[in-house]
Amino acid sequence: MKRVAARPENAHQARMLTMLRDNGPLSRAELGDAGGLSRTKIAIEVGRLVELGLVEDAGPALSRGGRRSTMARLAPDLRFLGIDIGATSVDVALTDGELRVLDHVSQPCDVRAGPTAVIDAVVGLAAKLRAERGVQDLFGAGVGVPGPVSFRDGAPVVPPLMPGWHHVPIRDLLSQELGCPVLVDNDVNIMAMGERQAGVARGAEDFLFIKIGTGIGCGVVLGGRLHRGVSGSAGDIGHIRLSDDGPWCACGNAGCLEAFFGGAALARDATVAAKEHRSVILSERLAAGHELTAVDVGIAAAAGDVVAIELVREGGRRLGHVIAGLVSFVNPGLVVIGGGVAGLGHTLLAEVRSVVYRRSLPLATENLAIVLSELGGLAGVVGGARLASDIVFDEPRHSAIGMQ
Amino acid sequence: MKRVAARPENAHQARMLTMLRDNGPLSRAELGDAGGLSRTKIAIEVGRLVELGLVEDAGPALSRGGRRSTMARLAPDLRFLGIDIGATSVDVALTDGELRVLDHVSQPCDVRAGPTAVIDAVVGLAAKLRAERGVQDLFGAGVGVPGPVSFRDGAPVVPPLMPGWHHVPIRDLLSQELGCPVLVDNDVNIMAMGERQAGVARGAEDFLFIKIGTGIGCGVVLGGRLHRGVSGSAGDIGHIRLSDDGPWCACGNAGCLEAFFGGAALARDATVAAKEHRSVILSERLAAGHELTAVDVGIAAAAGDVVAIELVREGGRRLGHVIAGLVSFVNPGLVVIGGGVAGLGHTLLAEVRSVVYRRSLPLATENLAIVLSELGGLAGVVGGARLASDIVFDEPRHSAIGMQ
Repeated sequence: MKRVAARPENAHQARMLTMLRDNGPLSRAELGDAGGLSRTKIAIEVGRLVELGLVEDAGPALSRGGRRSTMARLAPDLRFLGIDIGATSVDVALTDGELRVLDHVSQPCDVRAGPTAVIDAVVGLAAKLRAERGVQDLFGAGVGVPGPVSFRDGAPVVPPLMPGWHHVPIRDLLSQELGCPVLVDNDVNIMAMGERQAGVARGAEDFLFIKIGTGIGCGVVLGGRLHRGVSGSAGDIGHIRLSDDGPWCACGNAGCLEAFFGGAALARDATVAAKEHRSVILSERLAAGHELTAVDVGIAAAAGDVVAIELVREGGRRLGHVIAGLVSFVNPGLVVIGGGVAGLGHTLLAEVRSVVYRRSLPLATENLAIVLSELGGLAGVVGGARLASDIVFDEPRHSAIGMQ
Repeated sequence: MKRVAARPENAHQARMLTMLRDNGPLSRAELGDAGGLSRTKIAIEVGRLVELGLVEDAGPALSRGGRRSTMARLAPDLRFLGIDIGATSVDVALTDGELRVLDHVSQPCDVRAGPTAVIDAVVGLAAKLRAERGVQDLFGAGVGVPGPVSFRDGAPVVPPLMPGWHHVPIRDLLSQELGCPVLVDNDVNIMAMGERQAGVARGAEDFLFIKIGTGIGCGVVLGGRLHRGVSGSAGDIGHIRLSDDGPWCACGNAGCLEAFFGGAALARDATVAAKEHRSVILSERLAAGHELTAVDVGIAAAAGDVVAIELVREGGRRLGHVIAGLVSFVNPGLVVIGGGVAGLGHTLLAEVRSVVYRRSLPLATENLAIVLSELGGLAGVVGGARLASDIVFDEPRHSAIGMQ
């Protein structure tokens, strides 16, 4: 019989747990600073957190004058899971309470194999990590999936890349299997929060995380929180129109960003170039018998192939036009570019920057940085653990997680 | 010597004032509901608000069982000012604590006349309203200006339509003249909050307010609050790119939305059509000796002039493409179209709707309404009063207002 891990009992305890997660060990005095609590009340609340097994003492604090305070830290056995269900692989990571990745496993897994196979794979990887590390209680798990999610229901909604997953209650299924609260979100949202927790967007309040994979999506973080929109579809930028006479898109319109650029579009354009013998490298790789992907374009571009470089630059220019519009609209402090195709790296980044700094208004770009993702493949699992901890460490009044 | 009006002393009092503003009279029991306060503590806080002159008793409440509660309401002499400095006119309105417009005056005034002349006009109108209504204490004033504003400094920043206003401390100047806290913001932001307070966006949590005047701007309301961005320039959508080969824009790029559509672009296109004798009505109006504006296009379109109708439809189509992208990105519940050119009305609205519902993703438009502004010219003054009350009714810890 699995035990249910303890949770904070009130807003003061929730705030203290979040502070300890984000800052590491703190003195009792520091824990009280933001809450306006008396010394006695701080001692009571920290005492309860210790009794609940969420916090432990960590020796005497440096004196701030007056009576010496005692340090507190998150219990070292707090464990979260970050789960990243990708189109072709599953990643699971185990973190401690401060969201440091203790262990990380990955396995190829086609999301089109359907919910049963994929959830089995996730549960298997989680069990492996728990067994290896002797983990009894999980405090929470956060799951990213490559498609639109009803955040409230914890289930995908008509996800184009995930046939058979519509309305599958991933949250509830995994919550039962793992014995802890589970949160499910779109993978781009999860990756954005991962970069904010431990990557290049650390502590950023207003930023955009652009994921370029097979398609293109955007995590929108405003005021330090994910903006999901009224139907949970915010950030779906792959179908923003670039022109009326572009290639047809899977969505039924012509000229969408995704129809021009992204992993699928690059693969298509590279294949055409190879077949027309416009690129020696791409033709050779196609003749060698494998389907071309964005990875081949990256390899060809790195080898100086002019056609491949032009594909990357033209894609970056188009992506830049869309980002420029978003920057004028949102006025963020930072834009992070991640996802598999971001591996095209600095050629892509240079083109995006050039367009954005030219097209967006000076006031909006004055304090704007545009950078590549720092966490790469770990962004999803770190973000999953972060979102799980946000909700587990919050007061017990949320409906977006299982185990209520 | 002007008296400084009282302000709430703590978060409980602030919350109660906001509840009374938005709901009208409430019982003491209702005032306590959201705050988790004991009966005694509610009585103490309401008592303080009565002593401060911010609240008054309003007779016995309907019984909810148990001891009968007493109703409270905002003091009937609370007064806010909403000030809308437009490109060619100044509007000032006096409201009560629940933000009902008690009186509204307007006067033609060219913002290019510079700060001294315009601020004198505002102060004159405000003095007139106060004298007529016998108003001693103003609780706050909110001011909209037609250009980018540093919200923190309460001053315009390089505003293109307001020569001579760069860094003019409007907030501090008006705060001194009016003897109350003053808040300054971009006119589009102010109008958005006006529609949320008393117009078609009443109570909407996530919506966009698109203002089509000489230029085009957008107020972005997320989670019920204005999103201003890191430099205060959020919502500047007039320079989003529609194509590379469009007309040149004042910003130095080609193909911006504003270069295609908006009051200035309509005036330009109408003048060309009139000179080329493609439209009888427009040619006659030009020959009659006045410069053509968007108003002439509206009159010609209403009279069935094909060229004018086509200008409106083509503009609406382009505006629709930009809004479609924003809808995919933000996933709002509502888009409100306002500003002078919105007077083109239903032809424009139909075209915008058609494009947005076709181009945005189904998940994003499922719950989306696109409507015309309800308040029209009053949106700015109501929004100004609303933002002033937000800050005056909040705890005394803000830096974005004068009189600290």
